[in-house]
Amino acid sequence: MFRSIVGARAFASLGNLYSGKKKEDGTKSNNTALSSTKSQKSVFLFTRRRCDGDATMKKTLGGKGAGLAAMTNLGLRVPPGATLSVSVCKDYLEKGPEVLEGLNELIFEAVDVIGEEVSKVFWRKSTDFVGEELPLLLSVRSGAEASMPGMMDTVLNLGLNDRVVDALTQTAFTDESKRRFLYDAYRRLLDLFGDVVFGIPHEHFEKKLRKLKELKNVQNDVELNADDLQSLCEAYKDVYEAHEKTFPEDPQEQLMLTIEAVFKSWNNPRARVYREVTKTTGLAGTAVNIQAMVYGNLNDKSLSGVCFTRSPATGDATIYGEWLQSSQGEDVVAGIRTPERIEDMTKFGFGDALEELKKNCDVLEKAYKNMMDVEFTVEDNVLYILQCRVGKRTGIAALKIATDLVEKNKLITPRDAVAKYVNVEHIEQVIHPTFRRPVFTPLGGIDTWNVLAEGLAASPGCASGRIAFTSADAIQMQKLGQKVILVREETSAEDVGGMHASEGFLTARGGMTSHAAVVARGWGKPCVAGTKSMHFVNQEYHVIHHDKLEGSRPIVERSVVFEEYPDVSFKKGDFISIDGARGEVIEGEKELEPLGTAIKDNKALMTFMDWVDDIQSETHVYANCDTEKEIRFAMETFGAKGVGLCRTEHMFLASPDRVRCVRQLFLAKDEDARAKALADMEPILRHDFSNLLHAVGHENSITIRLLDPPVHEFLPKNEELDDPEILEEITNYCGVSEETLRSKISKLRETNPMLGNRGCRLGISHPEITAMTTRALAHAYYDAHEKSGIQPVVKIMVPLVSTVTEYLQQVHIIDREMHAAFLARLHTLRFAKQHFEKRLSKEREYELDYHPFKVGCMLETPRSCLIAKDLISIEDVGEENFALKASFFSLGTNDLTQMTFGYSRDDSSFFQAYEREKVALVDPFEILDWDGVGRLIKIALDEITAPDEITDTKASATRRLAEVSACGEHAAEPKSIEFFVRNAVDGVSCSAFRVLGARLAVAKAQIQVEDEQEQDV
Amino acid sequence: MFRSIVGARAFASLGNLYSGKKKEDGTKSNNTALSSTKSQKSVFLFTRRRCDGDATMKKTLGGKGAGLAAMTNLGLRVPPGATLSVSVCKDYLEKGPEVLEGLNELIFEAVDVIGEEVSKVFWRKSTDFVGEELPLLLSVRSGAEASMPGMMDTVLNLGLNDRVVDALTQTAFTDESKRRFLYDAYRRLLDLFGDVVFGIPHEHFEKKLRKLKELKNVQNDVELNADDLQSLCEAYKDVYEAHEKTFPEDPQEQLMLTIEAVFKSWNNPRARVYREVTKTTGLAGTAVNIQAMVYGNLNDKSLSGVCFTRSPATGDATIYGEWLQSSQGEDVVAGIRTPERIEDMTKFGFGDALEELKKNCDVLEKAYKNMMDVEFTVEDNVLYILQCRVGKRTGIAALKIATDLVEKNKLITPRDAVAKYVNVEHIEQVIHPTFRRPVFTPLGGIDTWNVLAEGLAASPGCASGRIAFTSADAIQMQKLGQKVILVREETSAEDVGGMHASEGFLTARGGMTSHAAVVARGWGKPCVAGTKSMHFVNQEYHVIHHDKLEGSRPIVERSVVFEEYPDVSFKKGDFISIDGARGEVIEGEKELEPLGTAIKDNKALMTFMDWVDDIQSETHVYANCDTEKEIRFAMETFGAKGVGLCRTEHMFLASPDRVRCVRQLFLAKDEDARAKALADMEPILRHDFSNLLHAVGHENSITIRLLDPPVHEFLPKNEELDDPEILEEITNYCGVSEETLRSKISKLRETNPMLGNRGCRLGISHPEITAMTTRALAHAYYDAHEKSGIQPVVKIMVPLVSTVTEYLQQVHIIDREMHAAFLARLHTLRFAKQHFEKRLSKEREYELDYHPFKVGCMLETPRSCLIAKDLISIEDVGEENFALKASFFSLGTNDLTQMTFGYSRDDSSFFQAYEREKVALVDPFEILDWDGVGRLIKIALDEITAPDEITDTKASATRRLAEVSACGEHAAEPKSIEFFVRNAVDGVSCSAFRVLGARLAVAKAQIQVEDEQEQDV
Repeated sequence: MFRSIVGARAFASLGNLYSGKKKEDGTKSNNTALSSTKSQKSVFLFTRRRCDGDATMKKTLGGKGAGLAAMTNLGLRVPPGATLSVSVCKDYLEKGPEVLEGLNELIFEAVDVIGEEVSKVFWRKSTDFVGEELPLLLSVRSGAEASMPGMMDTVLNLGLNDRVVDALTQTAFTDESKRRFLYDAYRRLLDLFGDVVFGIPHEHFEKKLRKLKELKNVQNDVELNADDLQSLCEAYKDVYEAHEKTFPEDPQEQLMLTIEAVFKSWNNPRARVYREVTKTTGLAGTAVNIQAMVYGNLNDKSLSGVCFTRSPATGDATIYGEWLQSSQGEDVVAGIRTPERIEDMTKFGFGDALEELKKNCDVLEKAYKNMMDVEFTVEDNVLYILQCRVGKRTGIAALKIATDLVEKNKLITPRDAVAKYVNVEHIEQVIHPTFRRPVFTPLGGIDTWNVLAEGLAASPGCASGRIAFTSADAIQMQKLGQKVILVREETSAEDVGGMHASEGFLTARGGMTSHAAVVARGWGKPCVAGTKSMHFVNQEYHVIHHDKLEGSRPIVERSVVFEEYPDVSFKKGDFISIDGARGEVIEGEKELEPLGTAIKDNKALMTFMDWVDDIQSETHVYANCDTEKEIRFAMETFGAKGVGLCRTEHMFLASPDRVRCVRQLFLAKDEDARAKALADMEPILRHDFSNLLHAVGHENSITIRLLDPPVHEFLPKNEELDDPEILEEITNYCGVSEETLRSKISKLRETNPMLGNRGCRLGISHPEITAMTTRALAHAYYDAHEKSGIQPVVKIMVPLVSTVTEYLQQVHIIDREMHAAFLARLHTLRFAKQHFEKRLSKEREYELDYHPFKVGCMLETPRSCLIAKDLISIEDVGEENFALKASFFSLGTNDLTQMTFGYSRDDSSFFQAYEREKVALVDPFEILDWDGVGRLIKIALDEITAPDEITDTKASATRRLAEVSACGEHAAEPKSIEFFVRNAVDGVSCSAFRVLGARLAVAKAQIQVEDEQEQDV
Repeated sequence: MFRSIVGARAFASLGNLYSGKKKEDGTKSNNTALSSTKSQKSVFLFTRRRCDGDATMKKTLGGKGAGLAAMTNLGLRVPPGATLSVSVCKDYLEKGPEVLEGLNELIFEAVDVIGEEVSKVFWRKSTDFVGEELPLLLSVRSGAEASMPGMMDTVLNLGLNDRVVDALTQTAFTDESKRRFLYDAYRRLLDLFGDVVFGIPHEHFEKKLRKLKELKNVQNDVELNADDLQSLCEAYKDVYEAHEKTFPEDPQEQLMLTIEAVFKSWNNPRARVYREVTKTTGLAGTAVNIQAMVYGNLNDKSLSGVCFTRSPATGDATIYGEWLQSSQGEDVVAGIRTPERIEDMTKFGFGDALEELKKNCDVLEKAYKNMMDVEFTVEDNVLYILQCRVGKRTGIAALKIATDLVEKNKLITPRDAVAKYVNVEHIEQVIHPTFRRPVFTPLGGIDTWNVLAEGLAASPGCASGRIAFTSADAIQMQKLGQKVILVREETSAEDVGGMHASEGFLTARGGMTSHAAVVARGWGKPCVAGTKSMHFVNQEYHVIHHDKLEGSRPIVERSVVFEEYPDVSFKKGDFISIDGARGEVIEGEKELEPLGTAIKDNKALMTFMDWVDDIQSETHVYANCDTEKEIRFAMETFGAKGVGLCRTEHMFLASPDRVRCVRQLFLAKDEDARAKALADMEPILRHDFSNLLHAVGHENSITIRLLDPPVHEFLPKNEELDDPEILEEITNYCGVSEETLRSKISKLRETNPMLGNRGCRLGISHPEITAMTTRALAHAYYDAHEKSGIQPVVKIMVPLVSTVTEYLQQVHIIDREMHAAFLARLHTLRFAKQHFEKRLSKEREYELDYHPFKVGCMLETPRSCLIAKDLISIEDVGEENFALKASFFSLGTNDLTQMTFGYSRDDSSFFQAYEREKVALVDPFEILDWDGVGRLIKIALDEITAPDEITDTKASATRRLAEVSACGEHAAEPKSIEFFVRNAVDGVSCSAFRVLGARLAVAKAQIQVEDEQEQDV
């Protein structure tokens, strides 16, 4: 018989293998039938009797294959199988099908070994099948080194065919449950095989299933009986026919076609684009795992289950899981039946299995040094471990597990904990509220929720509340004790009151740096911005007043509608939820995970952040702060090293009074009026600066950016001009007629404000603003020094510089004003000294800083990066020989990305098409573009490095001729931070609430770089 | 006496000099008093007896100094003088005043030699002055190697002081005319010295003069008498006093202070900014020329004159000039008295002088090998040549002179003619009308005209005409036989009719690539765009109809006002003139220079362009053309090598029908309607393309760019939506309600359209447009081939690419459609072959191109330049193994400049402040920015050059892995073309009317590069 012959042959060759000693790369030292023809081994068994691989061999076996080998090596009961190595895939892709033909026999030898172990036969040809026993059925799964969405994944139950099913249902499998089991297995094979091998879209099979359920009037698959499923198999074959395909009866053909299909899928467009955009390089292909099937639904002594070795919610060190009797793996998470709790296995007679499972969990944790997510099946009272992987966990759990593994279990070092056990999202979860989501559904329960729309994940955190459409409504509703979500087209400075009263913000327009997003991150509130599929609807109706027939104003009822749910409209007061970390808008009110304790009282967090700080990096973390409160919060609570970006526009727009002053600066009728507005503003700014400097404290640094936003942000909005009262107020304080006002505004309007009159261009066309800001800051600095003896490191930053002359014009003004302030203070001091000799020490006078500020600029246009060297080579000097060259730079990667790609952050509507057409899977505004934007940055960094030091290949900030840090959204994103750390950028500066995460990301990147360097040595 | 001592000492040292042999660098081989202390000679005499310099020594003596030496060497009578070399200035700037102190005696030795030659004494100390003779008076002028605006220039009459003036007016200079002469000379000295040395603004002196003229009630300076001028001298001294300065009486001090001031002015901010923005490098400083004064106003045997050695208007080889008896040089061009014609000198008794002048002109022409502009003075019947420089000339004259110098005079080679004798502006003048401007005023008469405003020089040529504010008015006025200038805020596709009827266009908004500018250049009409100081005023008034009291529509009278002339408003029908080469708007109607003959009949031009073509360059000149007519014109008349840029948007917007189709594409209610619009468009495009390909002709190349403009350009304008009739029409053909239409339009509106949905983003979000365009083009290509046997080289270009995936998505579509068209034609051919065997040769079938098009993309975002290498390294293939990698690039320097600087072309209002603040003197949209934008281009060029060839330092297009050319405005600008030629860019493509100029610019740059390489060898 075929079986015995194959078996014998397989043993003949495999027998030799056992005598070989295993080498580190998993090959045997003496060549054998399975490896004799190749320098690299192709087929790796993982069976009880022999396991060729181990946990370290991810490169050869893929992640899944290495895991299966590892578990087998650990002595766990894993259904036996074999892994086709990654190099086979590589060979196949290079040389074509003959590679597989050459391996044909090796593969089937391995299959026969698998069959031996489970005492079943894989009948190669359908006509060979005899007997009344279930043949060896196989699963085939892809498995690359890293997980790879877009690739073909799994075919189950390979080995079934009409002949087997017909024969068994007429002999050993005649009862309903066994027949049902067989047809169910067969139709799954047909579906998966059609999809994976022939590319027949899964939907076609789904449609047949749906139709059958409608016909039978049932809701769930489990309600279909054996006959139904038999007819479904026929229907599935019709699908094949409609696609001019035939399901191969021979198991041998099934197996080889499936393997080939998996290999081919490595290069399908989705997988390629995925690798391209995620910059996954160095992967040669995918491994293929061929494994014996086991069935948790075989009988009532069978079950399927999933468990975590510790609690994924809290990190507590007790096993946590769910299971279902007589079920298949996917049933547990499908939510059709309610699963049982893991501790109740004993109650249902699975006590022994539970004990074994617990021991297995222990073994796995020790081996993997981590909390594991384990899939298991009990088939006829025998426990099998199907898969294990590192378990997903909440932020709180991650911190608890990491600190426990270090301190209690002594399994890992603090450095390990930082490198691998806690990530930035965990940290953000711990400091921001998140929704409670089901633990076990693979997509985190997303499907059971009504996600109304997806917008930009503009500020992390989750919030539920009632909708308010205006700032006023939000304030009023909050006063009534309601939780409010402010829903706006976009927000502006005038909405700040309502934003304060709200739990979070949802906007239809605007990107990651829109007003709503920036405010939200500053305040640590959740925000979903740029929700393009959300539309505002204004329904007007008139209420006729009997006493006043004419002039009745229409009453406008506002609501929002989401494109995906066009039938539901959301009005003021309706509940809505937003997840600012995911960018999701969710229907209704959702429960929040408890935040645990306050940040500073979170012991695990504090311990962990100490470990983070132990990783020394040249890249320090600063915060973007505009107010005293933010500064204290960022530095004291989150450990920011200083203020990396303080935007003066906040001060110019912080109150209606100030807005009025600013508008006068641009719109007032004459020079005198503008000078008056400037004079009004100066003491306000001086006071603000003084507070900021006190908050920053002695010797800490603060970078203050000159006025930056496009000019239109300072001008009256159209709504204001449409309101006669507001219009009158504005014309009054600007001292111009309505006509002049409108004409001035229209002249200042720009077609492309992002490329228009903003940044240093404002300061150049209005030198008086730069001068006044410098003056106010200089005096605030001297005030603070005089009052409290503090001397913070103050840096003035010129924004949006593209040319040396732009920078020079501004730095001349700054220098002049700085010097004038110095002289003024010196004069006052001397006068004081003369008249109140006793109250002033002699030293005091000489403590007065000549030029208290460093001056530098943003690198945020492509040109600035290209001429950075010129900016630090300026030879001009100002008063008292103050060097006018730029002494520091800040990388404004938002604008740099915008201009390098030519993508407007505000107008990325085309990006929807990009996603649809797979033209882009990563948003460069979210993750720094290393190739383009990064390259520009590298050009700048290289050129401002001392030239005689460039030969050394290791980047180092200390060899720079000017400090360079990064501010903007990328400065808090881990992949972008990795870029900054790799290139030894001196600092990253992000919103206060992202400082913890950024500190962690810096440490992680630093470890990665150091580990690579160690490997290189 | 002081005089004799000085003279003796001077001779003593100078005597030695004559025995020295002159070396090439102008130093004597044996060191002398004047040069013994320095390795480099400092003071160079130019006198009859001794002249140390020559024409080649511009680097040492500056341009002016070398010229004076050259004329002296030629034996012309030049007032004697001496030049302080550039290295003195350099030393002074590096080491400070002691440098001048060390040279003090050398300088005065030279002054004494000058005095000897003219038999006058320079009295060093005022108290030394004795006698009744006019002392030696000196002029001191700066003179760098290249002319340098912003530097201090001239002080005249140095040596005068109170003592001299008082003494002479009481002795030898008592009569009115002599007294007047003296005081006039003195007050000029006071004015110039105050300005140059003490920085007292010239305005302060002007004010005194103005006041005096008011007091005396005279119009012109010449009407002031000696007493008046005497009092003016006093008034000028008051100005000194007001500035706390004292005019130094001692001539020695006057001279040394003036020299020092000239040196210092080298580093004044204006001069530095000028050098920076014009990239004038390698200049070490300025020379200073000290020269004896001569006076054309000394008596009636004296005169001043200017002449050209040939006619500057026509190039005819006869001396051409003007003069005034008893006058100073500046009087001739000041227009106070009417000058005489040069040929009338004999009539007034200056026959000998004229003969000598003519001979001098001849000498100068032979020496300089060019037409010269000569300043001369006759002092008491003795002719002096004061200055000569190469004469400015009109375009026609330039061509005539250049061809005469080559062919008749045999003075220069054709290569010389191309390199130096005709420039791009000359060529543009010859093909475009220019205004007749006075020849002799230094500023070309600009001051005598009312230049109302300056805008962008958007399209060369000049035109006068009556103002029309609407397209309809322009058409109507033209029908009445009037010449029309269309004056608009900005133009759009709808204005095309009126633009056709107009002589030129004047717009208030929009840049070099605005609709008006692009159309103007395409048609060769003048255009001044972006005239920001022009404002539209709508004056409304109501005419009350008696029979219809209500609803009377206001009558709106439109006019424009210019900021500089707020009192005058220009209405429809008023005359206005525009100079599109200078960007000037001029009041009233101006006379045009006759254009001469038609371009092809201009023999000198044709001869010259043949010489241009003899200069071989790797950089070829193509034209940007959108229509058949433009193509024929560009290629046949102007010699373009092919079409470097054909913008399909022109075809999409060429008529109302098409506009309607395009709008349906973006706004129609459903897929079907959009598909219908697309189907309507396809045959139209196919027909257009067919015409274009025929015009291009066999084997010539045409680059066709896919749809590019921001989406809003295709949408209805607000005015259209405001008109109920038009609105109804649009809603009808789009098949949507007004509400839906408005909502769709508002969703498509963008905050920054330049960074929004445009370029390939349109094609990616609307793949069907790319597909249809390709289809239409492919069939047009096969049509043309079938019909006329022609096979042009067709390139399809994807615009605004920033990522590889963007490009790939588009090229996949193009490839698919191209292949489908091929198959369709093949099928038809085979069918035809089968059925009409005789009518088709066998070969014909196989002639059918597989993939008739090359595909490539624009490099116009900074990122595209940074990833150009990736674009040519794409390994994917399409149908029939068509390589999908980019096979050519076109540099879109307009957008590249925009994004590299972050300056929007449309919103450069801040640029006014930049000019005011001297932050920018050059517009990077006009002249390519070599440092920033150019650097990005170089990165791209370097990386797409075969790596094994990079070691060779000479750039060469042949080693590129893909062709690279440049299109856009810079492609016709000489300094930018120089960049492209230096970097061996394969082609530049510009508007048809700029092709001649571009060809010349390429040849000039090529010669420059070759000459440099020769020098390097």
